[in-house]
Amino acid sequence: MIRIGIDIGGTGIQIGALNENFQILNHASIPTCTGIPFEAQVDQMVDCIHDLLRPVINPQLSMDQVLSIGAGIPGIADADGNVINCTNLGWVDAPLRKEFQKRIPKPFFVDNDANVAALAESVAGISAGTSSSVFITLGTGIGSGIIINGKVWKGFHGIGGELGHMILKMGGQLCTCGNHGCVERYCSASAIIRMAREQLAAHPESLIASICGGNPEKVTAKTVFDALHEGDALAEQIFTEYVSCLAQTIANVTNFLDPEIILLGGGVSKAGSVLLDAVREEFPKYVLFNNQPLPRIEIASLGAEAGVIGAAMLS
Amino acid sequence: MIRIGIDIGGTGIQIGALNENFQILNHASIPTCTGIPFEAQVDQMVDCIHDLLRPVINPQLSMDQVLSIGAGIPGIADADGNVINCTNLGWVDAPLRKEFQKRIPKPFFVDNDANVAALAESVAGISAGTSSSVFITLGTGIGSGIIINGKVWKGFHGIGGELGHMILKMGGQLCTCGNHGCVERYCSASAIIRMAREQLAAHPESLIASICGGNPEKVTAKTVFDALHEGDALAEQIFTEYVSCLAQTIANVTNFLDPEIILLGGGVSKAGSVLLDAVREEFPKYVLFNNQPLPRIEIASLGAEAGVIGAAMLS
Repeated sequence: MIRIGIDIGGTGIQIGALNENFQILNHASIPTCTGIPFEAQVDQMVDCIHDLLRPVINPQLSMDQVLSIGAGIPGIADADGNVINCTNLGWVDAPLRKEFQKRIPKPFFVDNDANVAALAESVAGISAGTSSSVFITLGTGIGSGIIINGKVWKGFHGIGGELGHMILKMGGQLCTCGNHGCVERYCSASAIIRMAREQLAAHPESLIASICGGNPEKVTAKTVFDALHEGDALAEQIFTEYVSCLAQTIANVTNFLDPEIILLGGGVSKAGSVLLDAVREEFPKYVLFNNQPLPRIEIASLGAEAGVIGAAMLS
Repeated sequence: MIRIGIDIGGTGIQIGALNENFQILNHASIPTCTGIPFEAQVDQMVDCIHDLLRPVINPQLSMDQVLSIGAGIPGIADADGNVINCTNLGWVDAPLRKEFQKRIPKPFFVDNDANVAALAESVAGISAGTSSSVFITLGTGIGSGIIINGKVWKGFHGIGGELGHMILKMGGQLCTCGNHGCVERYCSASAIIRMAREQLAAHPESLIASICGGNPEKVTAKTVFDALHEGDALAEQIFTEYVSCLAQTIANVTNFLDPEIILLGGGVSKAGSVLLDAVREEFPKYVLFNNQPLPRIEIASLGAEAGVIGAAMLS
């Protein structure tokens, strides 16, 4: 038996065929096309699935063997497999299950991409064996997935897990959502870029300035981490501010939900141990009962494959 | 069969004997004595329980009929019935179950008071019939209890539900916990008092000033609500600010956990519909997916009895 996992992103769609041990037997990717009708987008994904299923590679790879298909989306879906809202793809009330099952009559599931990644890690990744976890994706934006008692908790109305839009600083930075002070404005890759750009003019001597040729538009989160690695003072200052914000967010998750483990994924988490060590040291300061055992903080282990693996696990 | 519920507060201890329908058959209260040894405090509670059990009032009221004893504390306890930390009572690593069972050999349970109140409401109060809820006590401080899938969720390490010490405004007001910007500094009765005191000198014409005889030390949350009821402009300004902070906190709970229902209890919730209506109108502005069904917001229904009833429900 195999399961198909689809990781639908804003720029690309990753599709994998996995065996019962959630190992990827075959995979492919297609660009995300937003300028075409919804049905045509589904056709492209279905074509890609058919293309993956080539028994010549592995006898398991046939449609007969497919047990289920799951999709992770950067948005929210209801229990009937309708995508309620997925801004990046322009989907509003899109009947994803219905359209898929017209083309491939197999059980089809859809959930938020951070929930899916949290599920993947909790079954096959760094949080395997834990019963409660919170997965935080530190990318251009911030997503999160909550696992309680071994199951995805996406809220009673399906709108939970939006850690990125919890307010961390009332009256703070204006967010893309229209509110002020959201976590996303302080803990995402975009936040690191903003902090760097704000400081760049006052610090022309910084390595960040030379890496980006003096052009603030060219600063990325990686620029800052590269400069940090070289001991650049401005990069250290930005990193310290960023870690403080992230530590307060992780402490908020701890003070409220206190999961067994908190995972950091997404682009910023590629900074690895420099980030992990700093956050582990900083976040207990903001936890009320910090003389007690606290959640483990870890970098997610499945990387970019978490989306496909977790989507295949949906049931 | 009856169950004993003990609500251990900073100033008083309420004890009730409840029947199988969680109706209070008899109850009593004793002052909280913090200047005596822990064992003597337990002795006082045990004496009070014996005093409650008078078959002359009701034949059920005998120790033979007692199925279990539960206690709610303003602190945290472990699964073995040890109180890890309960600042108001000066308890640290206090073996509450062990000491109780030395005196009354019955099953004994202890949990945080906000968890206990959340449990009471979810079984016998306004949230009965719901599967997930968050109970927020708006008192001198802020506590919260989380119910998920019908059970108290107090975190993997038992340190969750501390909504009052989640950071709502990074770098904001200094909190009693030593951090800055905690929810408690903006959403408690103390926050209303602070907001009023900050404004009082500049608004000598306010009804708040006349109610408290111009003495800022005499301002209470009730002073502000009384003045609000009379249409006082300063009270309206304070109320608007308070509701905005509380709405952002409720939205944070919604964006992250999205429970079926959110309950407001504690002293400030006695303001009733004026508070409830304002919060219900304000909080959706801060919810990301606010075009979807949102958690119901309600005032807790069991009032001061929630502590005793919920403690008796512990098992």
